[in-house]
Order: sequence, then C-alpha cells, then structure tokens
Amino acid sequence: MVKIVGILGSLRTDSYSALALQQAIERVRALGAEAEILDLRTMTLPFCDGGDEYPDYPDVEVLREQVKTADGLILATPEYHGSVSGVLKNALDLMSFEHLSGKVAGLISVLGGQSNSNALNDLRIIVRWVHGWVIPEQIAIGQAWQAFNPEGKLKDDKLSQRFDAFAQSLVDNSIKLSKNV
Amino acid sequence: MVKIVGILGSLRTDSYSALALQQAIERVRALGAEAEILDLRTMTLPFCDGGDEYPDYPDVEVLREQVKTADGLILATPEYHGSVSGVLKNALDLMSFEHLSGKVAGLISVLGGQSNSNALNDLRIIVRWVHGWVIPEQIAIGQAWQAFNPEGKLKDDKLSQRFDAFAQSLVDNSIKLSKNV
Amino acid sequence: MVKIVGILGSLRTDSYSALALQQAIERVRALGAEAEILDLRTMTLPFCDGGDEYPDYPDVEVLREQVKTADGLILATPEYHGSVSGVLKNALDLMSFEHLSGKVAGLISVLGGQSNSNALNDLRIIVRWVHGWVIPEQIAIGQAWQAFNPEGKLKDDKLSQRFDAFAQSLVDNSIKLSKNV
Amino acid sequence: MVKIVGILGSLRTDSYSALALQQAIERVRALGAEAEILDLRTMTLPFCDGGDEYPDYPDVEVLREQVKTADGLILATPEYHGSVSGVLKNALDLMSFEHLSGKVAGLISVLGGQSNSNALNDLRIIVRWVHGWVIPEQIAIGQAWQAFNPEGKLKDDKLSQRFDAFAQSLVDNSIKLSKNV
Repeated sequence: MVKIVGILGSLRTDSYSALALQQAIERVRALGAEAEILDLRTMTLPFCDGGDEYPDYPDVEVLREQVKTADGLILATPEYHGSVSGVLKNALDLMSFEHLSGKVAGLISVLGGQSNSNALNDLRIIVRWVHGWVIPEQIAIGQAWQAFNPEGKLKDDKLSQRFDAFAQSLVDNSIKLSKNV
Repeated sequence: MVKIVGILGSLRTDSYSALALQQAIERVRALGAEAEILDLRTMTLPFCDGGDEYPDYPDVEVLREQVKTADGLILATPEYHGSVSGVLKNALDLMSFEHLSGKVAGLISVLGGQSNSNALNDLRIIVRWVHGWVIPEQIAIGQAWQAFNPEGKLKDDKLSQRFDAFAQSLVDNSIKLSKNV
Repeated sequence: MVKIVGILGSLRTDSYSALALQQAIERVRALGAEAEILDLRTMTLPFCDGGDEYPDYPDVEVLREQVKTADGLILATPEYHGSVSGVLKNALDLMSFEHLSGKVAGLISVLGGQSNSNALNDLRIIVRWVHGWVIPEQIAIGQAWQAFNPEGKLKDDKLSQRFDAFAQSLVDNSIKLSKNV
Repeated sequence: MVKIVGILGSLRTDSYSALALQQAIERVRALGAEAEILDLRTMTLPFCDGGDEYPDYPDVEVLREQVKTADGLILATPEYHGSVSGVLKNALDLMSFEHLSGKVAGLISVLGGQSNSNALNDLRIIVRWVHGWVIPEQIAIGQAWQAFNPEGKLKDDKLSQRFDAFAQSLVDNSIKLSKNV
C-alpha cells in the first residue's frame, strides 16, 4: 500500500489550505492509499538553525519520520508574498535528503487574490533540489474564500475534477517512482 | 541621510550570512548611510499565522518599524534547499505592503556548495510582489566556509569589490528611489 | 527627454500583445516621453548563433541601436508554455550588456487562459542578468481575447488604470535611473 | 525499446551544448535506448507565430513527429542571459501538448561563466506547463570551454559520473512514466 503524507503549510485557524489539503487527502484515501496529515498548527516545530539536532522539539522527529516513510507527499501552502509560506519552507528546511529524496510530491497553493503559480514554481524547484519528483498536475486556488461550501467541499466541479486527477496522478506515480514501494 | 536595514536570515551561531551582511553594512556606513542589522538570532518572532496582530511578540513591531522607516534593505539568506531560508521568508511574511512597498533591496545569499542564484531569484520575485525594488547587483557566495578570514573579512579581492559595488548601488539607488528621502 | 523603446515579442497578425504594447506606448508618449516600437513582425532577425556579427541582417543593428539609445524598455510577450516567447528571448539574445545594461524595463504578458506571472518572472530574472532594472509595476493580461474593444482600447477600467500607473512608473524611474538622461 | 530524443538548443558551430548532448546520448544508447538528436543547426525552423501550420517548413513536422513518438527527451541549452536560449524556446513553442505532454525530460545547460541553474529552472517550469515530467537529475556545466578534451569527452570524472546517473535515470524513468512504452 502506498503512503501519502500531506503537510499543511498554514497556521491560520480557518485555513483554506487545510480545506484544500483535506480534499486531496480524501481522494488519495479513496484510491486505496494510506494518508496522513501533518498539521503544523498542532505541531511544535522550531525555526531551523542550520543544525541537525533539535532535542527540545520531539515533533521534528515526527515530521522527519512521517516524511521518510512516505512514498508521496502533498505540500499545501498559502501563497504569501508571491511564494511559499515561511512556515512550510521552514518545515522543509528541518529535513534533508535522507527524508525527502526520491519522494513524489503534489503541490497545492491557495490565494486570496487571483490565481497564480509563483508558490508552486518555487516549491517545484525546492523539491527538485532535494532530489524529489513533482507531478505535473498542480493546483492553485485563487480567491479561496469563495471556493468552498460550508461543508468544506469544492463548489466548482471543474476544480473538483482537477483534484481527482491530482490524486490519481499522485497515487499512480508514487507507486511507479517510489523507492519504498 | 539614507537609512539601510539589513535582515539576517540565518539562525546559525557561526553564520556566514552574518559575516556577509556585516561586510555589506560596513560598506554602506562608509558611504554615509545610517545602517542597522536586524539579527533574527536575537529577536523573538512567531511563525506567521496569516494575521496582523502578534501582541505577545513585541519584536514583530520592532521588525516592522525598522523596515518601514528604512529607505533600503539588505536581505541576507543562507540558501536552503535551493531557496531562501524559511526563517527569512517567515520574517517577510510578518510584514505587508505598508512596510515593504517602495523599498530598495539588495540581496545576498550564502551557500556551502557551489554558488547559485536560486535563493536570490526567489527573493527578487518576492520583493517585487510587495512592490519593492531590487538592485541588479546581487551577491551569491559559494563555499562560504572558505570565503572569510578569521577576522571575518573577505579573502577574495574580486568578491570584496563586488561588495563595494553592491553597497554603492544600494545607497545611490535608495536615494534615487526611496519615497522617504 | 526620456526615450522608451517597446519590443513586441509576438509574430501573430492579430496580436493582443501588440494591442497591449500600443496602450502602454500611447501612455508614455502622453507623459512626454519619446517612444518607439520595434515590431518583430516587420523586422528580419536571425536566430542567435552565439556570435556577435550578423552582417546579412541589418535589422540586428537597428534593434541594438534603438535599445542602446533608450532609457527605458517595454517588453511585451505572449506567454507561451509558461514563459516568454522564443521570438522575444531570441531578440534579447542578439543583444548584450552593452545594449541592455542599466536600462529600466517594464514588462507586459498576454495569455489566452487565466492570468499568470510566469513569463513576467522569467523576464525579470533575464533583465537582471544583463544588469537592467525592472519596475515593480507589471501587467499580465489573462483571456486577452476579451480584454480589448474593436478600437483596441482596454475594456476594463481597472486594467486601464494599471496601464496608467505602469507608464507613469516607467517614465519617472527611467528618468531617475537611466545613465543616458 | 524506449526512445529518447535530444534537442540541441545551440546554433554555434563549435557548440559545447552539442558536446554535452552527445555525451548524454551515447550513455542512453549504451543503456539500450534508441536515441536521436535533433540538431537545430541542420534543421530549418521558422519563428513561431502563434499558429499551428507552417507549410513552408517541413522540418516543423519532423520536430513534432520525433518528439511525439519519443518517450524521453534531452533538452540541451546554452544559458543565454540567465535563461534558456531563444532558439530552443522557439522550437518548444512550435510544439504543443499533443507532442510534449507526458514526456520525461532530462535537462542540460552549458555556460561560459560560473555554473548556474537558471536556464534549468526555467526549462523545468516550461516542461511542466506542457504536462511533461522532468527528472531530478540535471546538469549545468560551467566554464564549458575547459570541460571537454579534444575528443569531446568530459575531462572531469565526477561530471562524467553525473552524466551516467542522468542517463540511467532518464532511461529508467522514461520506461516507468511514458505512455508510449
């Protein structure tokens, strides 16, 4: 069974990134994958100081172990200032090749304004840097405040279908490319 | 008098980014600018949660006020995973247009391996996003562990001259472009 | 008097990039600038072979001379495959630091689909590479087929105002930053 | 049998990109792949005008057909002005999803100066835009004038091993990911 880990790169209480990540996770589960969410709002991570050891922060090991044992990743970020959130980038900085190399990642960004792919582009280059794969399917949700209904489902069918294709590609290609499977 | 604020995007104790920023700050001071360093190692900043208010973290206001009253900025980052450090990105996320718009920034990145401009490219797009300027002169220091002598000075004359040109351009163009001056 | 040169990076007969460039050129002229359009549809340029001399193509010298004597540039490109058109990139490849360094550029991209800043981001890094400036104001026109009326004017007032601000910034900052003025 | 097509994005007579591409092609052949080089120096391609039909240029169909029937691609470009050559970008502009979607690409860039990954980054985003894959292994050759011996072989063993790993990954993953195989 393929294992997908989603990292939520937003600390907002009512996070649209969380809703988007949830949509993706449900779909990969429906395809038979084991799936976990690492919700950075409920984890206590330090700022990365360039070192490897963070003995006062056991959640660093949780993060590293979950990612290391995953085949695929979903990185969900709000787009802040035309790039990935510092929160998510810092979480990635706390890991290294040992955890991230060879993983198959799917990317989601969420914006208040008009849709854009800046954060997705930066994440694509970052994941490559640690020798991961990124699936071609990616999702940028513009004007996220009107994308979800009160139950947290996607209002737009076309966007919902993009999530279907995203999840299918992530599961299929994690199986094909993962070194763990 | 033009005011330049440098932000140190590394939390490492023996940070080469700190040495590089120091070199730049000394040069802008020698050109008559007022210059301050915001050393994130000595400030207590929260992770950005997408909100505006961080009452428990008075250093957020210090950061915002220093940047807002600056004409020019120096952003110094270690290149982590082919991009800006999460630490620095998070500090930028804590600010908004009100603080960053119209500023003239100079960019420095520091790497353990071969020189690269990935972090500088990402920062250039980020600063644009908040309607700032970035000077064409930029500095990427590869193999930073051999770039400085024990006194923290640059060993390579050519690199030192790049810092001279960087500082000159930053001061000159902060004067030309700043809305504060 | 400040001189602005616009380069049209599309070879389409009914080019929306041409309409967009025309809108920008009219505005910089209204602000008192001298302005020229280099329409690549009417110039005969070779593919860049990495050399400096193209004796069979006198338009190479026209391109170089116009750009060299300009203070500011407008680069207008269709976004092809998530980046600048090969046509425009090739025109830039035919020039070097001698022509491009120190210029102040404003960037416009035009897309059939949803607005995006990929081509603008790539151009921003390219212009920096040749030591030019790029103004923070930039324009990406999505779904360009519905952006203009039959007279070639912008239908949307807000977009029209973005062109006003773009032109004002380009002229003002070309005066401030140009080495020729 | 997996089919790899290499596109040479340089028109220089003594092209280091051509030498680099040759090194990669030899390696994929040694791994059992069928491999072709599309040498843009010997093909007559038009500038892309945004249209689909180029009846006067039969080489457009050669390009499209070779790429369409390939499983994997090698894109080799000189880095001009901090990005992909206009020549190569234009060749890509002449193709569409029908030809490029789903392909597995490996990227090589060649520079006169210090090694850099700007052209590779831009190409990675471009290939994604047309729904292709890009392998994590990529090669940037700095100071290319001293990288090859008179027989066109790589002088540096470590760089040669990077080509080995590049070819292995490209062949293996073209088999895993291609829709044709």
